[in-house]
Amino acid sequence: MSYQAPIKDMLFVMQDLAGISQVAALPGFEDYGLDTAQAVLDESARFCQDIVAPLNWEGDRNPSSFQDGQVTTTPGFKQAYEQFIAGGWQGVIHPAEYGGQGFPKLIATACTEMLHASSLSFALCPMLTDGAIEALLTAASDELRQKYAPKLISGQWTGTMNLTEPQAGSDLAAVRSRAEPQADGTYRIFGTKIFITYGEHDLAENIVHLVLARLPDAPEGVKGISLFVVPKFLVNADGSLGERNDAHCVSIEHKLGIKASPTAVLQFGDHGGAIGELVGEPNRGLEYMFVMMNAARFAVGMQGIAVSERAYQQALGYAKDRVQSRDLAGSAGPVAIIQHPDVKRMLLTMKAHTEAARALAYCTAATSDLAHHAGDESVRRENQALYDYLVPIVKGHSTELSIELTSLGVQIHGGMGFIEETGAAQHYRDARILTIYEGTTAIQANDLVGRKTVRDGGAVAKSLCARIAATEQDLLALGQEDGLVMREALQQGRLALEATIDYLVANAKTQVKPVYAGAVNYLRLAGLVLGGWQMARAMLAALEQREQDPAFFDAKLVTARFYAEALLPQAQALSASVRTSGATVDRMAVELF
Amino acid sequence: MSYQAPIKDMLFVMQDLAGISQVAALPGFEDYGLDTAQAVLDESARFCQDIVAPLNWEGDRNPSSFQDGQVTTTPGFKQAYEQFIAGGWQGVIHPAEYGGQGFPKLIATACTEMLHASSLSFALCPMLTDGAIEALLTAASDELRQKYAPKLISGQWTGTMNLTEPQAGSDLAAVRSRAEPQADGTYRIFGTKIFITYGEHDLAENIVHLVLARLPDAPEGVKGISLFVVPKFLVNADGSLGERNDAHCVSIEHKLGIKASPTAVLQFGDHGGAIGELVGEPNRGLEYMFVMMNAARFAVGMQGIAVSERAYQQALGYAKDRVQSRDLAGSAGPVAIIQHPDVKRMLLTMKAHTEAARALAYCTAATSDLAHHAGDESVRRENQALYDYLVPIVKGHSTELSIELTSLGVQIHGGMGFIEETGAAQHYRDARILTIYEGTTAIQANDLVGRKTVRDGGAVAKSLCARIAATEQDLLALGQEDGLVMREALQQGRLALEATIDYLVANAKTQVKPVYAGAVNYLRLAGLVLGGWQMARAMLAALEQREQDPAFFDAKLVTARFYAEALLPQAQALSASVRTSGATVDRMAVELF
Repeated sequence: MSYQAPIKDMLFVMQDLAGISQVAALPGFEDYGLDTAQAVLDESARFCQDIVAPLNWEGDRNPSSFQDGQVTTTPGFKQAYEQFIAGGWQGVIHPAEYGGQGFPKLIATACTEMLHASSLSFALCPMLTDGAIEALLTAASDELRQKYAPKLISGQWTGTMNLTEPQAGSDLAAVRSRAEPQADGTYRIFGTKIFITYGEHDLAENIVHLVLARLPDAPEGVKGISLFVVPKFLVNADGSLGERNDAHCVSIEHKLGIKASPTAVLQFGDHGGAIGELVGEPNRGLEYMFVMMNAARFAVGMQGIAVSERAYQQALGYAKDRVQSRDLAGSAGPVAIIQHPDVKRMLLTMKAHTEAARALAYCTAATSDLAHHAGDESVRRENQALYDYLVPIVKGHSTELSIELTSLGVQIHGGMGFIEETGAAQHYRDARILTIYEGTTAIQANDLVGRKTVRDGGAVAKSLCARIAATEQDLLALGQEDGLVMREALQQGRLALEATIDYLVANAKTQVKPVYAGAVNYLRLAGLVLGGWQMARAMLAALEQREQDPAFFDAKLVTARFYAEALLPQAQALSASVRTSGATVDRMAVELF
Repeated sequence: MSYQAPIKDMLFVMQDLAGISQVAALPGFEDYGLDTAQAVLDESARFCQDIVAPLNWEGDRNPSSFQDGQVTTTPGFKQAYEQFIAGGWQGVIHPAEYGGQGFPKLIATACTEMLHASSLSFALCPMLTDGAIEALLTAASDELRQKYAPKLISGQWTGTMNLTEPQAGSDLAAVRSRAEPQADGTYRIFGTKIFITYGEHDLAENIVHLVLARLPDAPEGVKGISLFVVPKFLVNADGSLGERNDAHCVSIEHKLGIKASPTAVLQFGDHGGAIGELVGEPNRGLEYMFVMMNAARFAVGMQGIAVSERAYQQALGYAKDRVQSRDLAGSAGPVAIIQHPDVKRMLLTMKAHTEAARALAYCTAATSDLAHHAGDESVRRENQALYDYLVPIVKGHSTELSIELTSLGVQIHGGMGFIEETGAAQHYRDARILTIYEGTTAIQANDLVGRKTVRDGGAVAKSLCARIAATEQDLLALGQEDGLVMREALQQGRLALEATIDYLVANAKTQVKPVYAGAVNYLRLAGLVLGGWQMARAMLAALEQREQDPAFFDAKLVTARFYAEALLPQAQALSASVRTSGATVDRMAVELF
């Protein structure tokens, strides 16, 4: 149940697919080329593999526990978190100005993947802190930034996102927590927040809650929500910790997975009001929170890839070790089960989907770097549009895949997969939250259809299709057999995607409910085809560079061909479902269920 | 978290799809028509809903526990089991000659579905007893039958299947347990058996273990395995219980799901040898065990349908109750989430797959009745061949579906789905064993390809395709729009299935590994298309009989159309994957992973 960071694949993706040289050419990123990436990845892998990964199973067996308002994390988590801070890992992506290391998102993404693969439960704490940092840097006053950002970026304090309330899950318009202005410019916060990841814990000396609440006389709905920073311990003018704030954990959840990550119910203001400070302007809280959420959505997509990789490594190890039944082609004695065609098919499915999803996510990270740092405004704008289009796909597609792939991981183990001590079941349970939190797959898909596809008439989506078509041409020009097989499958997939985009754009206004009934399958279609595109590009690289590393590139070639033959054909079914079944879904009256 | 047996759908399937009138026309089944079925189903539903279903969650929270060789089942299980015995439910399908009720499998199958939907963990005990009864009645001497069958059929004793050993999972050729002949005609059994469902418990006074072991000088491999009956307590000549036998539970497993069902490690012969009696002839144990396994495989398929139905009911209840977000078409306030297109799509997916799988399974049960009881030998033979073809599909397809559908059940609950107390996660965990035990999906699929498809040159498979084509003609003749949509999708699916059968038959001998790499997707393809066929037949019935029950038949019509539009298109992808990716799977050398 150990974990080996797939550094070779990560570097291949960075170099050949995500364009690290382009990123390293951006102003301020001159030192962050492939050599730096390799050094950082090696260092990150050591920390993750040696310190965090061994805690994953322990976190499941011995989850965070709650007593008298206190949460005690899994034994070993506190020491690992101390080393996480000492290594500066919280600051990788954050600005040097506040003590961070200012790495490109492309490199930071690989570090993120490793940390999540090592332990989803552990990595959630830094992930939420990242979101809090990003929201503060985007929206808070300079004073608030100075007060909180350095200690969050160092990891000395951690952050949380407080959105959900019992009656307000996906629908933030229903938020009821309220903020009362005080004479000193602060606010008193009152309300109950649920599902707060690391809302209480013993890893750090302070917890910085970012809380959505309503000011008196605020408008109804999402336009009346403001964002407040509410620390567990108040912060004195000199930066030292002051009084305990009136924000208390009243319970944590008993969950299917990620059990070491405490999911808190937080009560604000039961003893006179929790003191908070307004972040940015009143009533713009949701907008600021979306800054956190977009970063977090991408990170949850990485969680999907990370847990799929971990499950794959575990299943692969078992399949190589476990000897059972004769070879179908007729060996005398029993063989390792990896020799059995269906086990191999399952492993290839895990490998192909995981590598494709990784490539797509890293390319998405690179668009973020270009969107923020390119000198040319049109390049920034173009990449921001690509990033906005791709984030819901990375989130929705990678996490939906992770459920399927961790399930295959269990299946490869046979009966042992169902026994908890084997560890395969933990990945299956852990993965199950990923399609739900930070916006369910349907929320991602509705965003993808409405704001990201229909609003611009499908322009960004079609621009990606045009780039796919160019890759098809490259494959055709090469004339190599594997490439021609890929080209055919990719073309069919791309045509299915184009037809679907056309359908959505043409009907979104007049056939609202039928169109949105197809949103999730459109998201999955886009993820499947864009993943296939990345595998096609990887195949081109493999055909060109095979001699440099025959084992790596042969594996990439065969994996890509498998993607073309076994996975890409699902594109037609997804497209057909989107284009034909929406009206039928709408026709099914609630009473008929 | 209550359960309502879907009696209306069950009776519809029996009458309009599975041909209960044909079954009731068989010799000995004259009293088992629709009226009897309705009465039995009503009675079974009362018992299952009121007594068993409420224990399901308790069984998860308070699983079977092990101490000092004893297993204590979940509080309430013992009382429920007493009522199960008192109701005569163990005997439903077994011969009146031994105290059973002799019902057709078609009717018994509905009772089975209800019991499993109420609690998979509880229902496993009777399911294993069924298998033991069937093996004894098929293979044992009259004396052994008289000794064990009546008390198993009454439920006073329970049965187990002891196949698996640490080194012998799917590969029974590796069984090492041994049997030493004694002077008195009995045998001393030695060995370790693992994964023994209800191998130890406190529900009944005796447990009848059926154990695979090797006689001295038996041939290697599966042809040297014999079957023994090894009771927990020896049975005196007068039928009373004698000494404790040397068969002891040494531990039970800590599992992902079905936690109330104790999964035992049994040690035979650590204290001088467990006394067993040979069932049937030496070295034919595997053949006899297959009798149990075929019944059990069908029953596990029913478990898949049952847990899918239960998860659907739970998700439907939540979706109707939970109010969140405005209607996309523009309501003022928030609406129940069932109004949201993607939630409706998920519910329809659950409903459509579950109904299709139920119809296919009940039709399969009817072929078993015809195979055993038809007067005409050619009818018996034809139906036996159909049954043999369909069992691995019912097992493999229904259980694979149950993983997807229980996952949708979690998703519909959003964040609450991840909280154990909600109960949705339990179905997701429970379902995960179903594709593994009683033969993994790959084992089912290899059987389907080798013995059930290739061996007869695809004759049985093609005979089903011909019947599908006839249904297409009926839909065409009707000329109704829903029917024409279904006809087109069904035809495309059937053609994909035929092409796949042709590929398998043509290549199974020369391309062994590539062909078997496609086995699971062939099984899923067959399940998808045969399920679609049943939905097409249901649609015909709905169009003809609508006036009799507009709400029921309108729902059936829309559900069937959804199956045609949203689900059946996957047939092409599955077929393409089988026909093209096998060689690529084979090409991926183990070292390349």
